[in-house]
Amino acid sequence: MDTTATVLANNYESVKTTVRTAIVGVGGYAGGELARLLLHHPRLSVTAPLFLGRIAEEADMASVKLENLHPQLASATSSARHEVKPFSWQLLEDWGADVIFLATPHDVSREWVPALLEHNIRVIDLSGAWRLQQVTNRAVYKFVDADPALAARLQKEAAYGSPELHCSEIAAGRLIANPGCYATSVILALAPLVEAGMIDFSHGIVADTKSGVSGAGKHATATTHFINVAGNLSAYEVFGHRHTGEILEQLGLDADNFQFTPHLLPIPRGILSTIYVRLRHGMKPTEVDSCLRNFYTASPLVRIRATPHLPQIQHVVHTNYCDIGFELAKDGKRLVLVSCLDNLLKGAAGQAVQNMNLMFGFGEAEGLL
Amino acid sequence: MDTTATVLANNYESVKTTVRTAIVGVGGYAGGELARLLLHHPRLSVTAPLFLGRIAEEADMASVKLENLHPQLASATSSARHEVKPFSWQLLEDWGADVIFLATPHDVSREWVPALLEHNIRVIDLSGAWRLQQVTNRAVYKFVDADPALAARLQKEAAYGSPELHCSEIAAGRLIANPGCYATSVILALAPLVEAGMIDFSHGIVADTKSGVSGAGKHATATTHFINVAGNLSAYEVFGHRHTGEILEQLGLDADNFQFTPHLLPIPRGILSTIYVRLRHGMKPTEVDSCLRNFYTASPLVRIRATPHLPQIQHVVHTNYCDIGFELAKDGKRLVLVSCLDNLLKGAAGQAVQNMNLMFGFGEAEGLL
Amino acid sequence: MDTTATVLANNYESVKTTVRTAIVGVGGYAGGELARLLLHHPRLSVTAPLFLGRIAEEADMASVKLENLHPQLASATSSARHEVKPFSWQLLEDWGADVIFLATPHDVSREWVPALLEHNIRVIDLSGAWRLQQVTNRAVYKFVDADPALAARLQKEAAYGSPELHCSEIAAGRLIANPGCYATSVILALAPLVEAGMIDFSHGIVADTKSGVSGAGKHATATTHFINVAGNLSAYEVFGHRHTGEILEQLGLDADNFQFTPHLLPIPRGILSTIYVRLRHGMKPTEVDSCLRNFYTASPLVRIRATPHLPQIQHVVHTNYCDIGFELAKDGKRLVLVSCLDNLLKGAAGQAVQNMNLMFGFGEAEGLL
Amino acid sequence: MDTTATVLANNYESVKTTVRTAIVGVGGYAGGELARLLLHHPRLSVTAPLFLGRIAEEADMASVKLENLHPQLASATSSARHEVKPFSWQLLEDWGADVIFLATPHDVSREWVPALLEHNIRVIDLSGAWRLQQVTNRAVYKFVDADPALAARLQKEAAYGSPELHCSEIAAGRLIANPGCYATSVILALAPLVEAGMIDFSHGIVADTKSGVSGAGKHATATTHFINVAGNLSAYEVFGHRHTGEILEQLGLDADNFQFTPHLLPIPRGILSTIYVRLRHGMKPTEVDSCLRNFYTASPLVRIRATPHLPQIQHVVHTNYCDIGFELAKDGKRLVLVSCLDNLLKGAAGQAVQNMNLMFGFGEAEGLL
Repeated sequence: MDTTATVLANNYESVKTTVRTAIVGVGGYAGGELARLLLHHPRLSVTAPLFLGRIAEEADMASVKLENLHPQLASATSSARHEVKPFSWQLLEDWGADVIFLATPHDVSREWVPALLEHNIRVIDLSGAWRLQQVTNRAVYKFVDADPALAARLQKEAAYGSPELHCSEIAAGRLIANPGCYATSVILALAPLVEAGMIDFSHGIVADTKSGVSGAGKHATATTHFINVAGNLSAYEVFGHRHTGEILEQLGLDADNFQFTPHLLPIPRGILSTIYVRLRHGMKPTEVDSCLRNFYTASPLVRIRATPHLPQIQHVVHTNYCDIGFELAKDGKRLVLVSCLDNLLKGAAGQAVQNMNLMFGFGEAEGLL
Repeated sequence: MDTTATVLANNYESVKTTVRTAIVGVGGYAGGELARLLLHHPRLSVTAPLFLGRIAEEADMASVKLENLHPQLASATSSARHEVKPFSWQLLEDWGADVIFLATPHDVSREWVPALLEHNIRVIDLSGAWRLQQVTNRAVYKFVDADPALAARLQKEAAYGSPELHCSEIAAGRLIANPGCYATSVILALAPLVEAGMIDFSHGIVADTKSGVSGAGKHATATTHFINVAGNLSAYEVFGHRHTGEILEQLGLDADNFQFTPHLLPIPRGILSTIYVRLRHGMKPTEVDSCLRNFYTASPLVRIRATPHLPQIQHVVHTNYCDIGFELAKDGKRLVLVSCLDNLLKGAAGQAVQNMNLMFGFGEAEGLL
Repeated sequence: MDTTATVLANNYESVKTTVRTAIVGVGGYAGGELARLLLHHPRLSVTAPLFLGRIAEEADMASVKLENLHPQLASATSSARHEVKPFSWQLLEDWGADVIFLATPHDVSREWVPALLEHNIRVIDLSGAWRLQQVTNRAVYKFVDADPALAARLQKEAAYGSPELHCSEIAAGRLIANPGCYATSVILALAPLVEAGMIDFSHGIVADTKSGVSGAGKHATATTHFINVAGNLSAYEVFGHRHTGEILEQLGLDADNFQFTPHLLPIPRGILSTIYVRLRHGMKPTEVDSCLRNFYTASPLVRIRATPHLPQIQHVVHTNYCDIGFELAKDGKRLVLVSCLDNLLKGAAGQAVQNMNLMFGFGEAEGLL
Repeated sequence: MDTTATVLANNYESVKTTVRTAIVGVGGYAGGELARLLLHHPRLSVTAPLFLGRIAEEADMASVKLENLHPQLASATSSARHEVKPFSWQLLEDWGADVIFLATPHDVSREWVPALLEHNIRVIDLSGAWRLQQVTNRAVYKFVDADPALAARLQKEAAYGSPELHCSEIAAGRLIANPGCYATSVILALAPLVEAGMIDFSHGIVADTKSGVSGAGKHATATTHFINVAGNLSAYEVFGHRHTGEILEQLGLDADNFQFTPHLLPIPRGILSTIYVRLRHGMKPTEVDSCLRNFYTASPLVRIRATPHLPQIQHVVHTNYCDIGFELAKDGKRLVLVSCLDNLLKGAAGQAVQNMNLMFGFGEAEGLL
C-alpha cells in the first residue's frame, strides 16, 4: 500500500478557518454523523456547525439540544449555534452559512436547492435528488419541479460527489450530489476496470450487495423492527433499487448487463458488495492489483487489500475508508471483487465532508482519519 | 436431575381429542407461537385451532392465510378453520370453541372476558387483565369495567396461571390469567425459598432482569428499531414495571423490600433474571439445592441446574422450560439466583398451552417438549 | 401452495417401531440437533437413540450425560442408552443399531464406513466423505483409503442423500451421503430449471451464498470468535469451497460456468443463497413458478414462495424446510432465485432424519414438522 | 450539563511534543485501540508510537505490519517505528520511550515493571498487576515476585489510574495501574455518594454488571465462540470476579456488604452496571443529581445523564466517556444507579491515554474526543 498520501493527510497543518457550515435534517442517522464530524473538524472553528431541523416534520419544534436527538453527542456541543432550530430562511440569513449539508428526503432536497443556491450557499445534498442526469433513471424518484427549466439547468450543473472520480468538478461546484451508499461501493470497485477497458460486458455484471440497517433510515417500520432483522437475512428490491441508475450512469453500463441485488444484514452499519465480472482477456492477479492501485494512487480514503486478504465490514465501520479486494479464477477471466465501506461515513456523511474538504481547499482526508 | 416426570411426559399416549380451540389476536408474536403449538399438539385434532383477528384493529380484514401473518408457518395449515378471520360472536358460535386464548391488549381482554364466559367458553388470557387481585396493584392498567361488580366477581374467580403453583385451581378454572414473562421468571425462582421461610426480607430482594425484544411486542417503535437495540443494553421502568404487582402478590412480598429492574437485551427472545437474596440463617449449597428440587419434583417444565452450572438464555430459548440455578456466598447467607426462560414460550404461549393441558386433563407437558 | 402432502404428513399415525439408532460424534452442533430429533421422533421408541463420542478426540472420555454436552437437552433423556459413551465396536454390538448417523470429520467417516457396513449397519454420513463420484472433485478432501478398491465400490454404491432428487436410491440404500448445507440450498433451487432445460449455461451461473456461524463447527477459532463475526460480513474460499463439487455433479454443470462464493453471516444459523441465472428463452413469472411447484409437488419439506415474497432466513430457522422464491426481470430472461434453509436442519441433521424416514418406510416428514 | 470543561478540551492548542511512546502487547484488543489513539493523538508526533509484541508468545515473530494484526488500521501507519517488533531491551533502548503502555498479561506486567522503571521509563500498565494494595485482594492473581521487597515498594508507589479520583498522584507517577473495566464503571458511579456519606452500607450494595465480549480478550475459547454468545446472556464468576478487590479498596467497602455479578452480553463492546444502593436518609432526586455533578465538575470525560434519561451502552461505545444516571424511589432511599462505558476505551486504552495526558501535562481529554 502506498502510504505517502496518507502520511501527508495525517500531517495536515489544520489551521482553523472561517468557513460556516449548516446541516438541515440533523436528526437522522447521517445527520448525526455529519454533526459529529463537523464538530471535531480541525479546519472548522468550534462554533462553525449550525444545526437545523426540517420545516415539514419538525415545524412545531422549538430549539432542542443536539444531545436530545443524539445522546452520544452530549458534551460535544458548546455554542448557541449548536442548538437544533427549525429551518427558516430568516434564521439561515441571521446565522450565515457558506455551505449547507442537506440530510433531507429526496423531494425536499429537490425543492430547496434552487433557493439555497440563489442565496449563494453552496450545497452538498445527501439525498438522491440531483444524482441522475438521465430522465429515465430519475423517474423512480417522481420529482415534480416547480420550475422545470431551472431544475434541468441545475441538474446539468450538479457534480456527482465521488471525490475519487470527479475531484475538480467537486472543488469548483456549487451543487454536489453526494452518492448513494450502495452506489459508492459498487462504483469504486468497478471504475478502475471500466476505465482500463478490461471488462467483457456482454457476459453481464452481477453486484450482490449487503447493507446494515442504518441504511434504511431512522423511521420505525416493520422492516427495521429488531425482530425482523436479528438472526435474519433478506433480499429486497431485486430489480428495482434506485441506486441502480447511479451505477449505470457513472460506469456507462447497459441496464441489461448489470444485475444489482441488495440484502438487509442484521448489523447496524456497513456495506459489503460482492461483484462478479468476466474479463475480456485472461489476466494475472498482479495486473488486476496494479490496475486498482494505480487508479487510487492519489486517493487517501480508498485502500486496496492485497489478495488473498479480502475486505470485511468490520475493517471499515466507523472509518471513512472504502476497502477493495479481489480474487481471480485460475482462468484469469472470472473476477470476484469485494468492496466494503461504512454506509453512514464513506457512504454518506464522511463522503460529504470529503467533498466539503475539496470545495474549500482543505486536505481531502482532514477530519476523516 | 430427577427425570421420572419427564420420561412419563415423553411417553404420553397422545390420543387425539375433540377439544376445540381458538386464538384471538393470532397476529402478534405470542399469537404466532400459540398457533404453532396448537397446530402440532398431539391431543388436538389437526383441524382444532381456529384463528381470529381482533375486531378493533383488523376489522376490515378479510380472511387471510395464517402464513401471511407468520410466513414461517407456511405449509403447516390445511383447513378452513386455519384461515385468520375477523372476530365476531356469530363466527365463534358457528365454528365452536371449548377454550379460547386471548392474545389481546389488556383492555380488550378485560372487556371481552365476561361475554366469553357467558358463552360457556373457558378463557386463557395472556394479557395482564386478570392477574392482579389487589386494586392498588391493578391501578397501573387503568381498566374501566362496564359492570364493576361482575368484574370484581370474575377477578376473584380468576386463577393465576402458574401451573407449578396453582395446579388444581387451573384445572378447575374457567378463567386463567396467564402470568407475565418477567413475573414467571422471578416467581419460580423465589417461590421455593419463600415457602421454606428461608429469606431475610428486611434486607431487601433485588431482581435485575433482562429480556429479549419480542417482549416489547410487534408494533414498530423507536424502542424496537434495530439500531436502537443492536449492540446496546438499556434499563427501563426502573421503579414502575407492571409485572411488579404480580410478583408481590404471588410471593407475598412488601413493595419496599423488593426492587425489580428490567433491561432490554439485543436478542430476539429469552429472559434472564439475576436475583439477590439474603438468607435468614447460614445454609449449605446442598440445602438450597434440595429446597429447589423438592419444590419442583412433580414439575416437568422446571429444571434445576446444579451449581456451578448456571442457567443461560440459550439453553431455554425455543423450549418451554424455566431453568433455575444459584450461587451461595461462603457466608451461607448471600444468595444469587439465576432464572431463565423463553418469554414467548414459558413466559407466554407455552405456559398458556401448559394451562390448557391441565384444564383438559392432558399431560402437563404434552405438545411442549 | 399445495398443502395435500403436508396435511398427510401432519396426520401420520406415528406408531412406534423397533428401529435402533446411533449417533457417532454427538458432541457437535449437528450431533446435538440429531439427538434432539431422534429423542422426540414419533416412530422411534424413547430408548432408541444411542449416543457415541468418537474414539480419537474423546477417547479418555468416560460416559457423560448428554446434557453436559448440550445443556438445552437436559431432562429430555432418560435411559442408559442416552449416556454419551466413547465409541467402540464392542459397545456398538452390545447395544445394537440398525442405522448409524456419522457426525464425524470427513476422514473419520471415510475410514469407518467400510467396517460399519460390514457389521450390517446402514449409515447416514453427514460428512463430505462419500458425496462425490468424480475423483477430481473429491481431491479437495485428500482421502487416503486403506482399501482403495473397496472404497471405490462403496463410493459407487453411495446414494446422495437429497430426498427430493434421489428418493428411491435413498430408500434402498445402505450408505447415504448426506448433502452439504450450501449444496442443498443451491441444488434445490436450480434442479427444477436444469431438468426443464430452461437455463442458458453459457452465460454463467452465480451463486452468492451466506451462512450463519454454526456451519463453521464448534471448534473455537479466530474465525468463530464473537468479535470477529458480530457486526461483520466476510466472503471466504471464493474459488475453492468444497461444496462446489457436489453442486456441479448433482446439476451436471461445467465448473467454468458456475461461480460460488460463500459469506460468513453474523447469525448463529441459516443459509440464504442468491442465485443469478440467464434463461434460454424469455419466460413469464407464472411459468417459472409452475416449473418450481410441479417439481416439488410431492415434497413436503420444500416450500415455494409466491413472488413478490422472497424467502428469508428467519422463516426457516428451527424448521426442516427449504424455501425457494424468485424474481424475473421484465425481459423474462434474467432470473434471480433465492433459497433459504437452516444449515443444521435441512442442511444437516434434519435432512439426515428425512433420509432415515425414507430408509425405514416412515412418512418423509415425520418428526420434522 | 456543564460544558465549560468540554469546550476547553475541544479547543486545545495541540502543539506537537517530543514525547516518545511504546506499546507492549499491541496485538490484543486494548493494544489495537491504544495504537489507534496514539497514532492520531494531537500532541504526539506522527512517528511517536512504537509497537512491540511480547517476547513469550511472539518470539519467533519477525517484524510485521500493524495492519496485519489490526486490518482496520491499514493506511494509518507510515514509519518504521510503526512496525510491530518482538520486544527486546536492546530494541527499546535503540528506539527510546518516555512512557510505555503494557497491554500484557498480569504476570508479565508484574515481572517487567521493575526493569522498565529501572530504565527510567514511566509505565502505564493495563493489566491487574499493580492495582491492589491489600495482599488478600491480590491473592487471586497468584503473583510470584522475584524480589518481593522491591515489588512491595513499587506496589505502594503505584498510582491507581482513575483520573477522576487520583489526578495528582497520576500526574506525578512513575507507575500507573490502569483500572479494570468493570471496576471503573462501578467506582465512578459510587464514588460521589461514598464521599458524601450518603450510603447505608449495612443494607448491602448490589452491582449487577454486563459486559460485551471484547472484555474476554482475543483468545479463541468456547466462551467467546460466536454460537455461545449470540442470542445469549450468562452470569459468571458470581462471587469471584477479580475486579471486586479494586472496587472494595477504592471505595472502602466491606466485602460482606458488596455483591458484584458480571454477565456476558452478546455485543462486541460496552459495559452497563446497574447498582442498587440504600441511602441513609431520604433524599430528593435533585440532591442526588447535584452530588454527582459537583463531584465531576472538572472531569471532561464523565457525563451525568439527567433523570429520567438513563445511560445506554450505545451512547458511549467508541467514546471515552463514562455516563452515569439514576432513578430514586419515592421513598427517597432506594437508589438505582446506571453507569455505562466502552470497556476498551474508558475501561482500558482510552483511560490509559487519559492518564498519559495527565502525566505529560496535556489536556486531560486531548486525543479522546
